[in-house]
Amino acid sequence: MDYKIVRNGNKLIMSKLSVALGIDIGGTNTVFGFVDKEGKCVAESSIPTNASESAERLFERLFPKVDAVYQSISKNYYLVGIGIGAPNANYYTGMVEVPPNLNWQIVNVLEIVKKYYDIPTAITNDANAAALGEMKFGAAKGMKDFIVITLGTGLGSGIVANGDLIYGHDGFAGEIGHIIVVDGGRNCGCGRKGCLETYASATGLRRTVFELLCNSNDPSKLRNITFEEMTSKMIYEAAVDGDKIALSAFTFTGEILGKALANAVAVTSPGAIILFGGLASAGDILFSPTQKAMEDNMLNIFKNKVKLLPSALHNGNTAVLGAAALIWNELEKGKTQSSEFAPVENWDVM
Amino acid sequence: MDYKIVRNGNKLIMSKLSVALGIDIGGTNTVFGFVDKEGKCVAESSIPTNASESAERLFERLFPKVDAVYQSISKNYYLVGIGIGAPNANYYTGMVEVPPNLNWQIVNVLEIVKKYYDIPTAITNDANAAALGEMKFGAAKGMKDFIVITLGTGLGSGIVANGDLIYGHDGFAGEIGHIIVVDGGRNCGCGRKGCLETYASATGLRRTVFELLCNSNDPSKLRNITFEEMTSKMIYEAAVDGDKIALSAFTFTGEILGKALANAVAVTSPGAIILFGGLASAGDILFSPTQKAMEDNMLNIFKNKVKLLPSALHNGNTAVLGAAALIWNELEKGKTQSSEFAPVENWDVM
Repeated sequence: MDYKIVRNGNKLIMSKLSVALGIDIGGTNTVFGFVDKEGKCVAESSIPTNASESAERLFERLFPKVDAVYQSISKNYYLVGIGIGAPNANYYTGMVEVPPNLNWQIVNVLEIVKKYYDIPTAITNDANAAALGEMKFGAAKGMKDFIVITLGTGLGSGIVANGDLIYGHDGFAGEIGHIIVVDGGRNCGCGRKGCLETYASATGLRRTVFELLCNSNDPSKLRNITFEEMTSKMIYEAAVDGDKIALSAFTFTGEILGKALANAVAVTSPGAIILFGGLASAGDILFSPTQKAMEDNMLNIFKNKVKLLPSALHNGNTAVLGAAALIWNELEKGKTQSSEFAPVENWDVM
Repeated sequence: MDYKIVRNGNKLIMSKLSVALGIDIGGTNTVFGFVDKEGKCVAESSIPTNASESAERLFERLFPKVDAVYQSISKNYYLVGIGIGAPNANYYTGMVEVPPNLNWQIVNVLEIVKKYYDIPTAITNDANAAALGEMKFGAAKGMKDFIVITLGTGLGSGIVANGDLIYGHDGFAGEIGHIIVVDGGRNCGCGRKGCLETYASATGLRRTVFELLCNSNDPSKLRNITFEEMTSKMIYEAAVDGDKIALSAFTFTGEILGKALANAVAVTSPGAIILFGGLASAGDILFSPTQKAMEDNMLNIFKNKVKLLPSALHNGNTAVLGAAALIWNELEKGKTQSSEFAPVENWDVM
């Protein structure tokens, strides 16, 4: 449905439908889209992020493109807010602080955006945006307590309790990827050892393959690929082909992840844990050892109660849907003000 | 302040002040008290729990005593709600399910209470009640994100995020005591191995003393006490006297606890962690190794941000204050209905 018939005095008029702009700032591309209340992305596009440039310069390039796309849909749609997902973004302050893959320092993104569009805008990190996306449009619809785990280069998490995302007192909650799961274990990018993401992530999976290539004598096609060249997709394809090393790597990853999830369940008692991101699309090869380890290590009262689900965001770019869900969520909670429909002067009389 | 002067038409009248009844059901005693909005306990009393009796029988004995105490203060106070703390209590269902130290099966406590007082009533477990007590009257006043750890026979936890207690989808969140911290570690009452509470609790401390008595040759007065007789108070007193085994036991306890707290911080990013209960009163002997281990193991972005505080509930029985805080919290959030003051017909004209 792209419009709504409403009564205005004694005339029937067609109102425009409201859409939110979702922007996902990645290390390579910045993707954006206009997403309606039901999670339908009515138009989307992207620009290269150019990680070496400043944040100001990114938005200077981004907004003319946004304007052009908005122009093309503005006959039927009315923009009510902007949601942004970005690495190291802080919901409370609007700042992005020294993101790992961008050459930004500490930047107030909300202030920059305000220069272009002075409408309700919110920002959070990508894992939190994913959690809100699943709550509004995906696998967590109707749930008030769940956890989304994003399995990419690292491991991110967005935790929802009582229907609200947990940001913590400083805006940095949800660092399940940096729970130490192996004392004195693998070196982590954070400077410590044994963090969950050094095992359960695309990078962690690759590290596990190399540990297995060292410890085992099993033949494997992965023995012909360098560390730098190896991707989780290659490991997945080898596993599907029955490669023992690749299969063992997925099993080990699932075991460590499942054990950590059992501990996370003891903290917030979610009704579901949703796996999101590239690695999560490995399906049963990852889900089945994860589920088993989670149940095996779970406190009795939680056993067989927590669903382990794949992401159900398929309808467009998932990160854009998450970013749009962030601002939809704000608007619906009345945290920022807006009207569902365009003002009367913007309506088209039928 | 025990009353409030208000204008009623053109008369000045003295209204009664509202109080909440807090009830803490323990394995040995059931303590109750009438607590005003500021956390002042205006009257309290207790009865033996008689753990072998049914829940129905407990309340049959309890409420005549409650009535008598209420009678004695009812000239100045007006009862607006009842909060109950009990082991294995579920906030959502009002049920207490097979509590460890009571001979109850599955009991709907809210239904039983309704027979005696048909006013807003809520129930939760003791650790959650402690967290609400700290938020309303104690060390967490004004905080929206914090964790309370209760160190007693076991380790309980109450987690507050966004100003609300996290109950989880089933009412059982906050089982930080059952996070597995040592793979294949000490046997836990829950049937698994290596749970945090097998190390960080009064019982855990005693177990650690016995491990040290075995591994070390240091002389210690604790060598003359049996496992059954040894209390955490004895270990504390030995530590204060400079007993090496006792001191090492506290250090080890703090190290394990601090490390686990660093992981908990990565999940909900609390502004403070509050240690509550008998063992927490050991002061620096416990706090100092805990704080050090927490900071040493913390992800960079959280370092030096999280306060480690002792409970600040001193004004009466802490468990009663917590139970009263539960219902005060409900009433103030408008989750259940009540009026702050007594109806006009109950007011005393000055």
